[in-house]
This record gives sequence, C-alpha cells and structure tokens, in this order.
Amino acid sequence: MYFDFFKLNSIFQQPSLLTMESTDKIREINTRRGAPVKILFIGDVSGTVGQKMVHDYLPQLRQVYKPQVIILNGENAAEGRGITEKIYKEFLTQGVDCITMGNHTWDNYDLFNFIEEATHIIRPANYENNDLIPGVGMRIIKINKQKIAVINLTGRSYMGSFDDPFRVGDELIAQAKKETNQIFIDFHAEATSEKQAAGWYFDGKASAVVGTHTHVQTNDARILPKGTAYQTDVGMTGFYNGILGMEKEAIIENFRTQMPTRFTTPESGSGQLNACLVETDDKTGQAKKIQPIRIDEDTLFMD
Amino acid sequence: MYFDFFKLNSIFQQPSLLTMESTDKIREINTRRGAPVKILFIGDVSGTVGQKMVHDYLPQLRQVYKPQVIILNGENAAEGRGITEKIYKEFLTQGVDCITMGNHTWDNYDLFNFIEEATHIIRPANYENNDLIPGVGMRIIKINKQKIAVINLTGRSYMGSFDDPFRVGDELIAQAKKETNQIFIDFHAEATSEKQAAGWYFDGKASAVVGTHTHVQTNDARILPKGTAYQTDVGMTGFYNGILGMEKEAIIENFRTQMPTRFTTPESGSGQLNACLVETDDKTGQAKKIQPIRIDEDTLFMD
Amino acid sequence: MYFDFFKLNSIFQQPSLLTMESTDKIREINTRRGAPVKILFIGDVSGTVGQKMVHDYLPQLRQVYKPQVIILNGENAAEGRGITEKIYKEFLTQGVDCITMGNHTWDNYDLFNFIEEATHIIRPANYENNDLIPGVGMRIIKINKQKIAVINLTGRSYMGSFDDPFRVGDELIAQAKKETNQIFIDFHAEATSEKQAAGWYFDGKASAVVGTHTHVQTNDARILPKGTAYQTDVGMTGFYNGILGMEKEAIIENFRTQMPTRFTTPESGSGQLNACLVETDDKTGQAKKIQPIRIDEDTLFMD
Amino acid sequence: MYFDFFKLNSIFQQPSLLTMESTDKIREINTRRGAPVKILFIGDVSGTVGQKMVHDYLPQLRQVYKPQVIILNGENAAEGRGITEKIYKEFLTQGVDCITMGNHTWDNYDLFNFIEEATHIIRPANYENNDLIPGVGMRIIKINKQKIAVINLTGRSYMGSFDDPFRVGDELIAQAKKETNQIFIDFHAEATSEKQAAGWYFDGKASAVVGTHTHVQTNDARILPKGTAYQTDVGMTGFYNGILGMEKEAIIENFRTQMPTRFTTPESGSGQLNACLVETDDKTGQAKKIQPIRIDEDTLFMD
Repeated sequence: MYFDFFKLNSIFQQPSLLTMESTDKIREINTRRGAPVKILFIGDVSGTVGQKMVHDYLPQLRQVYKPQVIILNGENAAEGRGITEKIYKEFLTQGVDCITMGNHTWDNYDLFNFIEEATHIIRPANYENNDLIPGVGMRIIKINKQKIAVINLTGRSYMGSFDDPFRVGDELIAQAKKETNQIFIDFHAEATSEKQAAGWYFDGKASAVVGTHTHVQTNDARILPKGTAYQTDVGMTGFYNGILGMEKEAIIENFRTQMPTRFTTPESGSGQLNACLVETDDKTGQAKKIQPIRIDEDTLFMD
Repeated sequence: MYFDFFKLNSIFQQPSLLTMESTDKIREINTRRGAPVKILFIGDVSGTVGQKMVHDYLPQLRQVYKPQVIILNGENAAEGRGITEKIYKEFLTQGVDCITMGNHTWDNYDLFNFIEEATHIIRPANYENNDLIPGVGMRIIKINKQKIAVINLTGRSYMGSFDDPFRVGDELIAQAKKETNQIFIDFHAEATSEKQAAGWYFDGKASAVVGTHTHVQTNDARILPKGTAYQTDVGMTGFYNGILGMEKEAIIENFRTQMPTRFTTPESGSGQLNACLVETDDKTGQAKKIQPIRIDEDTLFMD
Repeated sequence: MYFDFFKLNSIFQQPSLLTMESTDKIREINTRRGAPVKILFIGDVSGTVGQKMVHDYLPQLRQVYKPQVIILNGENAAEGRGITEKIYKEFLTQGVDCITMGNHTWDNYDLFNFIEEATHIIRPANYENNDLIPGVGMRIIKINKQKIAVINLTGRSYMGSFDDPFRVGDELIAQAKKETNQIFIDFHAEATSEKQAAGWYFDGKASAVVGTHTHVQTNDARILPKGTAYQTDVGMTGFYNGILGMEKEAIIENFRTQMPTRFTTPESGSGQLNACLVETDDKTGQAKKIQPIRIDEDTLFMD
Repeated sequence: MYFDFFKLNSIFQQPSLLTMESTDKIREINTRRGAPVKILFIGDVSGTVGQKMVHDYLPQLRQVYKPQVIILNGENAAEGRGITEKIYKEFLTQGVDCITMGNHTWDNYDLFNFIEEATHIIRPANYENNDLIPGVGMRIIKINKQKIAVINLTGRSYMGSFDDPFRVGDELIAQAKKETNQIFIDFHAEATSEKQAAGWYFDGKASAVVGTHTHVQTNDARILPKGTAYQTDVGMTGFYNGILGMEKEAIIENFRTQMPTRFTTPESGSGQLNACLVETDDKTGQAKKIQPIRIDEDTLFMD
C-alpha cells in the first residue's frame, strides 16, 4: 500500500507563544520519509454559508487529497466580520490545524476573550507595536515528526498602517528555520502588485506564499524559480451568488449612493469553496506542486 | 464544413463619435444566422513583451477560436504607460477591432495627438465633465451585418474621482440598444467588490462585463443568471517573471522603502497572454459561454 | 441710532424642497437698505461639549456681532456622529437658521426619521444619484426681505465617491441666483488643495466659501479678488483638550496599533468655539469682510 | 542693554550622522543664562516665490524676533518638488540652521547627490528600513553652548507606508535627551487628527511639535499642559494667489476632470511667508511661548 496511515498523536509542545499544539483528531497522514508534505489551505471562510461549505466538503477534500495539514483563513467566519470561539472550536473539530486572519481580525469582540488561549489561531504578524497586540503572528504546527510554520502577514496598500511585511516576514522565517523548512505564509492584501512582490521576495525562503482578502480566486498558481509555491489569491469560501460572499443589493446601493448600508452574509444559499493544495519536499520544504481547488455548489464541479 | 468564411468588408459608418469603422483586414468570420457571436478580449497588454505576445499568438488564437470581434486593453502598451499611435496602428493591422483603456489612458502624451481621429479606441466613459475629455467611451463596431457596442468604464474604489460607472453604463447601454444587443463592457477597476457589483448590476443588460487593471487573471468566469458573461479580471499580457508585467526589483524596493524607483517593462523575456472568449446569442446578445484563455511561454500551454 | 431693530417675522415660503422657512424666534436684525448682511457660521459642533458651547456663547455672539443669519455645521453634534431631532430642534430654538452636514451626515440613524420634514437642514448636495438621497443640498433662507442661499458640498479627496462639487455648485448657484445674490457655501473637505480650488472656482459666484471637516481653524481668511469670502477651515466647536473634539487616548492608541478603539466625545470639559463672521453687500452679495472667531474657555479670549 | 550679542562660532562636532555643524555666519544670539531659546520655523518654502520670500523677509524676522535658531521646511523649494544643492546652500547663507523635508523629499534627484554631505538637512526619520535610506532624520544643532535637536517625522494617514512616527519619535527623543532638552519636531502630515495625536503624545517630551504639509497656517498654536508648543500647521511660504503655492488653473482642471495636468510654481507674484516662533526655557526645554507669524505681501502686515 502506497500510503502509511498513522493516527495523529496530540503532542503538547513546550509552552511557547509560537508553538501550537496539534488538534486532537484522527487523521490519515503520511509521514514516511520522502513522501511530500501536503498542505490544504482554504480561503476566507465567510459567514454561515462559508462554515457550512467547510463542514460539508472538508471531509471529501481530506479523502481526495489526503493533506497532512489543514489551514484556513477565518477572518470573515462570523457573519463576515471576525470569528467567535464557537466557530473557532468547530473548525478545530473538523480537523483544521491553524486559522489565519487579516484586516477583519478584531471585528468580532469575542476574539479578545479567547485569543490568548487559542493556540491554533494567528493574526497578522506585522502590527506596529506588535507587543501591544493580543495573539501571535506565527505558529509552528507539529504533526507526527513534521513541523510546519504558518505565518500571517498583511499588506499595506489600501490596508492601513502596518509594519513592513517583508522585514517582519524575514524575521519570522529566520525564527522558524531553526525548527523547520516547512513555512507557509498567508499574505492578506488588496493590491496584486504587493502580493506578487511578496511572492518574489520570499521565493526560496518560504514553501508557499498565498494571498487572501480579495475573495476571488486567481488563475496564476505557480512554483516560482527558487521553489516557493505562489498564488495571488486563493478566493473565498461562502455564498456564491453575492458580492465577496455578502448579499449584493446593499453593496451595490452603497457604491451608487455612498449611503450607509448594512453588509450581510446570508444564512443559506448555494456556496463556493476556494482552496489550494500545496505539496512540498519533506526535507527541504521546497514546493513541488500547487493546485487551486474550487467547488461551486451550483455546478458541482471540483477543479 | 461547419463554419462559413467571409472576408471582412471595410464598411465606413456615417461619421459619429460613437460609431467605429471596422478595420480593413481580412478575417474569417461567421455571420450565418444563428451562429454565435464570438468576442476575443485580450487583457492589459503591457510593454514590448506584451506587444510581442499579441503579435506572436493572436494569429493562433484567431485560428483556434475564430472570433468575429477582437478587443484588447491597451492602456499599458507603451512601456507600461499609455499607448502611442504607432502601437495603436500595429494592433489594428493585427486585426484588433477596438482598444480599451483605463487609469493609465493619458500616461503617454502621444494619445492627445491622435485620439480624436482614432476611431478604434475608447477611454473610460465615466469621466466627470466627460465633454471636456478627448475621445469617447463607447464605440459600436460593425462587422458584416453584426454590430457590437464596446464600453469602457472605470471603477472608483482606490481609483480616483469619476462619475458613477453604474449610471453612466446604464445610459450608454440604452444608447447602444438602439443599434444592437451585443454589448461588451471592459470594467477597469481595482476592488473585486466593485467589479462584482458591476457584473450583477449589468446582468441582463450587457452581453459581458469583464474586469481589467489588477493584471492577474481570476478563476471565476461565469454566466450570471440573466445572461451576462462575467470575469473579475482577465489578467495582463506581458512579461511573465515580473510584477504586473514590470521588472520586479524596483517595485519591491519601493514597497520596502517608499523611495522613488523607476518601474519599467523589460524589452524581452518570456511572456504571458491572458484573455477570454465570450460567445453570445447573435440576436439577443445573451452570453452563452465565457472561457478564460492563458498562454504562458514558459510552460507552453493554452487553457 | 445706527442699527434698526426688527423682530423676525416667521414667513412661510411656498412649499419647495429648496426654500426654507425661517425659524420662529426673536432676533435683532438690520435690514435697512445698504446695511451689510452679516452671516455667522459656527464650525463643526461636536458632541455634548459642542452643544453646550453653542448654548452658552451664541447669545453673546449675537449680541456682539448682530448677525442676521446663523448657520452651523452639525454633522458631529450627536456624540461626534450625525445629529438627532432633539439636537436639531434645540439649535433652532437657539436661533440657528440652517444646519449643514458632511461625511458624517447619516451616522445617527435618527436623521432618516426627520430629515424630510426638517426644513432647516441640508446635507451635501453632490451625492451621486442625488435623487435617491433623503434631504436636499441647498436651502434658501428668508429673513425679512433678504434671502440667503446656503449650499453644502463635500470634497472628494480622501472622502469617497461623490459627484463633481464644482459642477454641482455651479448648478445650484445658477438656481439660487434667480432669487438672491447672497450665497453661502459650506465646503466640507479634507484636502486644503481641494478647498482652495473651490474658493478660487466659486470666486465671484458665491458670497462665501468656507471649509469644514478638519476641525482646526485656519489662519487664512480673506476676500478673494472677485469678492468671495474664503477660509480653508472654520474649525470645530467642542471639547478643547482632545483630538478633533474627541477623547485623545483612543485615537492615539488606534494610530499606534491599528486596533479598533472607540472614539468618544466627552460629556464635559472646557470647550472651544470656532466660527467666522462674513459681511456681504446687501444687493450684490459680494463679501466685504470675513472675520474668524475663536472662543477658548481655558483662556477666555474672543478673537 | 537687554540682549547680549555674540558672534556664532562655527564649531565642528565629532563626526556623527546625528550631529550637525552650525552654519558659518554672523548672528546675533543671546545665550545668557536664563534667557529663552528662540526658534524660528518657516513653513514649506515653495518654489521661486518662496525662496524670494525667505530672502526678502528673513533679515527682518531676525531683526524683530532675534531667534538663535532658524529652521525651515524645504521639501517644496525646487519648483514645488524637492530641493537642489544650490537652493540648500543659499538657505544656509541666509542663516538657516536646519532644513526639514517630507513626502516630497526625493522629488528632485539632485538631493541624492549631496544629502550624504549635507549636514544641515534632515528627511523624515520614520522610513521603514531606515538604514537603506540616504540622509538622517535628526540633527543636533550647536549654537554657542546651546544644543537643539531637530527631528523630522511624517504622518501615515493618506501619506503612504512609514514606520510608526510615535515610536520612532520616542527613540530619537531618548537619544537627543543625552545631549539636550531642546527638541523641535517638524511633523509632516495630512490629517489634523494625526498631528494633534502627535502633539499630545509628545507633550512633555519635546519642546515643540509643529505640523507642515497642508500649506495652510492653522489658528491653534498653544502650549500643551506638559510644556510642549504645538501648532497643527505652520503654513507655506510662497505664491499667495494660487493653490498651495502653485498656479491654480491646472489644479482646478485636475480636480474637475482627473486629467493629467502639470502643477507649477510661478516665477514671480506676490508672496506669503508663514512661520512660527517658539520660545523655550534654556534649561528644561519647556516651551514658554508659541507665536504664529504670517507675512502677506498683498496686505503688508505681520502678525
């Protein structure tokens, strides 16, 4: 049999803000020497429909792709704005290893209540005066004998005033390299130029740099020359027939009138799941493959 | 044989700012009753490499897809900034019917010299005080017995102060509808939300709403419920191993230091061509199909 | 005696969205032929302290300067965000003739409930799709035999997507000129360049163009060459020892961390009142004088 | 006689990027123990008219106010864009001790050629990756026995991506305090909120925080409770009948059409000089007085 199956042991790391205990779940993972590390990353999960898409399709994705590591961006999970402890725990139950955030990190106040104890969540690492901000921007996941560092950075173009994501990324990569070559970066940004700049800048330093925030999957996944998997935006997971996963009417009205309107994620409706699968060399951490994944409930296809 | 081939007759329209004479070229087109109208749209052609990609691959695209209409966004054609009369005429020679622009329309001063006589180019229609701006924002192309209206709009989020593209689009569509149901919109914008809003807003009114500006092809082409083809961004045509078609070093340095650096498009290097093919009903103008096209010289594949 | 005193007659205009009934109050006004029209404009009244400053010092300002017309910007009156009907009515009781707004117009939902009946309030006139927006952007106040048109415009630099304030201003001025030469514009904008551009553009067309929004009084009041009174910003009326009239701690923290903090106006504290007095020729509407007014409770001086 | 007069000795400091040699000129200065330190700061000198205003009126200002230290913001000196070595040297000849810059620092390429040797110029200190940027952000001027630290910071709201000016300011103040209590900050920023935040944040730490960039003098100079002199904006020095010191027509056209227009500073015309005089305690560095200065050639008054 090609794959070896192990149960995931819940190994508690020494207490460190940067080291994350793996989730206590049963997962089929292959850690045989020389087998690729497979990382599944699910893009901005938005609202109830987004949560439902993860619930309904993650089991199939796990069956089909057999990822050892599952990461998702959860900054829009709670009705489009931030995340709650309840949602966070449900994601863990479903097998998610690490949740990344972005500019909407603090939109739901509940996060302030649980982030310090939440060892499976990271928020952008490049806050100015980072020491004053709850939570951390990098976690190192341990799964059997493999460690994967997950880093969350935010861009600055049209995003506000943050510390230089390039320099902060360098610092975290240096820190992570002491423990592992597997380094996954969620670069949460608006401008395609800034995301491509991050891809090239971290090429050869990180295993993968994938973008989030625009909620639309880009068709440009590639392995950069020095071995970093790159995709400008993974896309969102949520309500399909809206705008960025939200009801479209209020957004159109706002664009047309500049009047305050309430942006909402619907409670139901057909959904879309956008993700990507990255495969890396288990020793060097170099990316071997990056594959966009898109599930549209309306058309029932899986790329 | 399934397709009928006709030579394109160069038919000069009555002089009107809104009606465009077709280009004098030989093209295989099918205008048999009931055959779909096929529109090829090539995304932001950038610099010398972008021009070369059009030169090298448009003949193949024409052979494979047999579009009756070819449109391209040319706002970055002249070294990344605007367009010159020389480049404009080369595009026409190669069979391009209409060239759309965007926020870089006026970057090359040469356009001021020839735009009033250039009947195959449009710039964003939604300038405030549009009457003061050279050029027009809509052209109606006539090819044999079929007319296609091409509209160029620009978004406003992160783009500057323009007139409401939704209202201006409505007005131009009403004007175009007097002559044709085939209406193609290049919506040049940064924010995915604004582009999706435009897609939904014009759904059922236009044959296609496709986005440009971000230079990265999105993986979300679809036919919206009321029959409008939509894609958030078609992507750019130009230098592949750069940032948005430009040399990457200067852009990364600018992001890291905010220092002035000169952004340049290289003279050579492997290229990428991003485009989409839209097929519409020849009578109703409703979209039947939208197909993203991507040619990477490095990998030599065509989607 | 130099001044003639008349009681203000409450004259109801024919019902028109653009014509405002004068407030029913007793005011000493001079409408003798050839006497200047004196307009007092009070800058952005912010929160409880701002309301209190108006309550405490407007009687003195009326006594000292004897303005026939009193206008104030009220977009921050309700705890820094919008205005309520209660506050609106209190302003009228205190003798305010017209209340202008700005980008915070709709921050307090209460305005939606009363704006259609509120004949003494205007919001920016240059909304795109203005017909869809509640309220109006110009009112013509009638005081004895004199009419004064008050126009509210908003800039666009760093302010969002609005219709061209220059063109909309021209249109409203043309409309107002049919009834009066007294035209007062509150130009609510961030950029000093855009405000100065408005001053020069409307020079000779309006009696006064004064700026609001930055909450800091500028020291540049002048009569422009063609007779328009101009001041880049009148300044705010509210809490003195804060930032823009708000408690300073939350704002500094937000600048330093980008974390969400709650900006609040205090319930008490020493206040500042910023205003200007414009005097115009009663026939031509040309400005004769513009005088900045500043009251600091801490220092008890009045410029 | 109340004032003692000394010739300024040109004392060369030990070579340090942060220590500036005083200019070799003859100046009447009072350094008698207990006499206040008087700092004259001239706001954004713009173009030829701005240079001429400094040339024509600085002698009078020196005679009237007898400042020991003269600082000016020179980022617009060269036709509105940056500064040249020629202009820089002329300022020094006229008695300027330190030139501050801002977001236009690098607009004139000439600065790259001379900044490393220019010991009397500073650019914003809070560049990200500051070590990569030519020049320094703080200079300590020595005049007789008194030292004055001059710091240049830039805001971030609407200004681009820079390092936190609050933290960088703290670091430089700590460094300066080893040598002197006299600390003058030019805070170059757009938003009044960010400038007021800087005033309050550095209150008690710096002798003065004065703003530049908006080119309009504000009427809010004050001594904050802990002894820091503050003014939101000192205003510009240059062409009076324009927009921010530039010809107005091109700017208005740009606002109205978004078309590229060339912004220029005129070669002649009546000018304005905006400045402020700060007096501090010679030992503690606490501000005792801040006085706005405005010279309008049209009206020939001096506040």
